[in-house]
Parts: sequence; C-alpha cells; structure tokens
Amino acid sequence: MLKIGYLGPEGTYSSHATKLYDDENLKIPFNTINEVLSSLKSSETNQVVVPLENSINGSIVEVLDFLASKNNFHIVGELNIEINHSVYSLSSINNEDVKVVYSHPQALAQCYDYLINNFKNAKHKASNSTADSYNDLINSNEKGVFIGPPWMKDNEKIIVIAENVQSVKNNVTRFVVISDKNKIKKTISDKTSIVISFNEDSPGSLFKALEPMAKKNINMTKIESRPTKEKLGNYYFFIDIEGHFEDKDINECLTEIKEISSLKFLGSYPKFN
Amino acid sequence: MLKIGYLGPEGTYSSHATKLYDDENLKIPFNTINEVLSSLKSSETNQVVVPLENSINGSIVEVLDFLASKNNFHIVGELNIEINHSVYSLSSINNEDVKVVYSHPQALAQCYDYLINNFKNAKHKASNSTADSYNDLINSNEKGVFIGPPWMKDNEKIIVIAENVQSVKNNVTRFVVISDKNKIKKTISDKTSIVISFNEDSPGSLFKALEPMAKKNINMTKIESRPTKEKLGNYYFFIDIEGHFEDKDINECLTEIKEISSLKFLGSYPKFN
Repeated sequence: MLKIGYLGPEGTYSSHATKLYDDENLKIPFNTINEVLSSLKSSETNQVVVPLENSINGSIVEVLDFLASKNNFHIVGELNIEINHSVYSLSSINNEDVKVVYSHPQALAQCYDYLINNFKNAKHKASNSTADSYNDLINSNEKGVFIGPPWMKDNEKIIVIAENVQSVKNNVTRFVVISDKNKIKKTISDKTSIVISFNEDSPGSLFKALEPMAKKNINMTKIESRPTKEKLGNYYFFIDIEGHFEDKDINECLTEIKEISSLKFLGSYPKFN
Repeated sequence: MLKIGYLGPEGTYSSHATKLYDDENLKIPFNTINEVLSSLKSSETNQVVVPLENSINGSIVEVLDFLASKNNFHIVGELNIEINHSVYSLSSINNEDVKVVYSHPQALAQCYDYLINNFKNAKHKASNSTADSYNDLINSNEKGVFIGPPWMKDNEKIIVIAENVQSVKNNVTRFVVISDKNKIKKTISDKTSIVISFNEDSPGSLFKALEPMAKKNINMTKIESRPTKEKLGNYYFFIDIEGHFEDKDINECLTEIKEISSLKFLGSYPKFN
C-alpha cells in the first residue's frame, strides 16, 4: 500500500484534495509543508499532495523551491480545488447575537465584507485552520459562528448560516501530487512541467529558450520566474506546457532547450479538468 | 499633505514599510488589501503602500489584478522588507512553563521547528496579525510567549526571548507604492514595470514580445504569468525590466512591444537597494 503525505489536520482543503486524489491508500497528515516534503526524502511517504498555487495568494514558494532542487521526484498529478467559504453555527442564532467569528485569518479577510454587513456586534478571531475554527467555537465562552469549507455541512452538529460568502470569486488552489515513482504514461490530455535556469545571466537567455516552443506551436500554460538565491539577478523559470514528454514535438523541444539552459524535467501528468 | 493608505493595524510589516517610505504625510490604516486599493479609486488616499510579493508565499494576486486593470495609477516606488520573527514574553519565563504561543498562522508555521524544540508544553494559537499576538497574550489566562516583528523589542513592557527563529531564511516581502500622481523622474538606478497580454492566444506571442528586450540587451528582473479570467488559457504577463521609460532603449522597446500586444505601463521608479 502506498503512503501519501499531506498538510493536516483532517478537514482542511489539503486533506480534501488528498481524498479526492486517492481513496485507497494510507494517508499521513503532517504539521507543515516542509514536513510533508521531507517525508518524501526520508521515504516515510511515497507520494505527497501539496498546494502549488492559489489564484488569490499566488505560488507556495516552498513547493517551487523543492521542485527546482536536485532530487528524483516527479509531478504525477494535479488537482484544482475551488475554495468556497461557508458560515456555520452550533445552534440557531440571530445575526445581532453573534459576538465572535472564528476562522483562518485568510478566510476572515476574504469574507470581511460579508462579516461586517451581517454581524455588526462580532469580533473576528483567528484560528490555525478553517478546520480548527469549529473547535475554537466549541471551546469559546461567547456565542458566535465560524467560517469553514463547504463539506462541513455534512456534520450533523453544525448548522449552515450562509454559503459562498467570500468577496473574491474564482478562488482556486492548484494541488500537485509529487511521487518517488517513475515517469507516468501518456493519456488523452497531459501537461508537462519543467524548470530552467541559465549559467550566464544574459537578457536574451529566456527569449532563446522559448524559441523551440514557439516554432513548434506548443502551448505554454504558465511561466513564473523565481530568484535562484545563488546569485543576485539569477532566476529559475517554471514553465508548464501542454503535451506529454513522449510526444515527438515535446521531446524534441525539451532536447533543444536543454542545449541552451539547465533544464530539470518535473513531470508529465494528466491535465485536471 | 498627502494621504497614504496601508494595511493595518499599526505594528505590522505593512505599517513598518509605510513609515520607512514616508515620515511626513498622513498615513491611514485599512482592514483589507481591497479596502486599501479602493481608497485610491475613491480618492480617499493619494498613495498606497501594498505588499506585491513575498519570497516564501509568492505574489499578492489582488494587487497584481489591480495593477492589470484599467486605471490611471502608477507604481512610484518599491521597498524590500526582510521578515524576521522574534519570540517575546511579558515577564521572565522558563521554556517548560510556556503553555501557549500566539502569532499569525504563517509565522507559527515558519517558526514551527523552533517552537517544538523549545516549548514542549505549549499549544500554538492563531492571532489575526503578528501585532495582535501581543494583545492576545495579555488577555490570555495562560502563561506563554508570542511571535512578533523585530521592532517590538523597543516596547519596554516586552522581553526578548529569542530572535530570528524562523526555519526558512531569505524571507523578504516586496512592497510597492501605487500613486495617483504623474509619472516620476529618472534617478541613477530605476526599474520599469509593465503588464502585457495578447488578443490572439498563439503559443509564440510571448516569444515575439520578448524579442525587442533581448535584442536591446535589456535586463528582465521578473516575469510572471497570470490568467486573465476573461478567457480560459488567456494570460497576463507581468514583467519588470531595468531602466526608466525616458531611456531611449526602454522607450523604443516599449513601443515595439506595444505593436504586437496590449501593453499597460505600470510605472518607472527607483530600484530599492
């Protein structure tokens, strides 16, 4: 049986993504993203499901740095999970009696407009995660509500007050599955991720590296620069393209880019719909 | 007198960056990044200081989206602020007597290794900001510590337990100053920010847009793609280059890029050292 690591605790978006990816194998929660990634290095896990980027808050740079570093792990899957905030209580309550709202500070900020319009007498209190905010309300000596993920409504002790209360729409987190197993097979619709860097820091380097893709009409779905930390002004470029490394075009393209840059192949994997 | 907006409350990294940028004018705190940005649109403020990207957590996408949208505001400055976490208490305390640690969940996560090694009996409790964690400890009925920014040691009621306790090094937030005033003058060392997009989604578009920069040997210090939300697979590219729009090379280059893309000039401003 495979061991799959993720950022706990149970009930968070990370645990939700992990269950959605796999419902057979052993899933192990860790306390921080770094512990999740380290579990792969120490062979404590075979695969990990980690957030890579959020449409509101940008990339999780610890994960980018792990992908760019020397190791033999590959991306074998991706999942896009919509982040939707619901307001819950433990018993029926009038808006004006809500004295406290618990949630992760990011969720509190994203629902700020709703909260000030609806709960005029409430303090906003931070929880460690949207899952923890439930426990914080149970242990609170004030009456109130908490903000949590949509699947919490399945809990019979919880009452739904409102759904989709965030001000910012299109809040999606892209999770990737990183694995110690070999490269994976071609499907009908794949994506390939690479990271490239240049020894010489000439302004035209990136331009030259994009030429093989442009000439072969390969679609680039992402490009992101990130400082290498080794030398000021020196960058990694994270690039996602459509296709699988077994496709003739992609294969030739990667070979050409390799001739003019340091290229690390991160993986080819099914595109998430 | 200018009115400068920032993300409050007092004592956070944002308020620190704002003071560093300006010590003369009126500074107005807001509750969310969106309120800060809206204050510029409603003329409640003339300038705002907002975080644009963090070296660990990536870009603040609300700010990127604001920059890319139709408006006449310009970036007029940048500041790079190092994020360093210190551990503080309210009275002298032995490590084993620490029952609770307060801070923003991001700070708790970044100091996780230090905390579990030093405070074996402590629960980690979330605060709304690193500035709030001080008040949370004051109001707590348990003995403990809190994690906050380095300048809190200037408060006479606070005792420094340890400094620089984060596991992740090189944690820097880049703030930008966005203004309603006109374009600003050339200095000895400037940066120019632009955002480009393409009507036609051909794979070679970005490649062609980078050509003028490559040919003129203009140094690109950042490139980041971001979905436009208008059409699936359609992207904005945020690009920073070295130089000022009054430089002949930069000016010609921007004109050439404009011929093959929709280009929004975001501003030329002094490079932060």
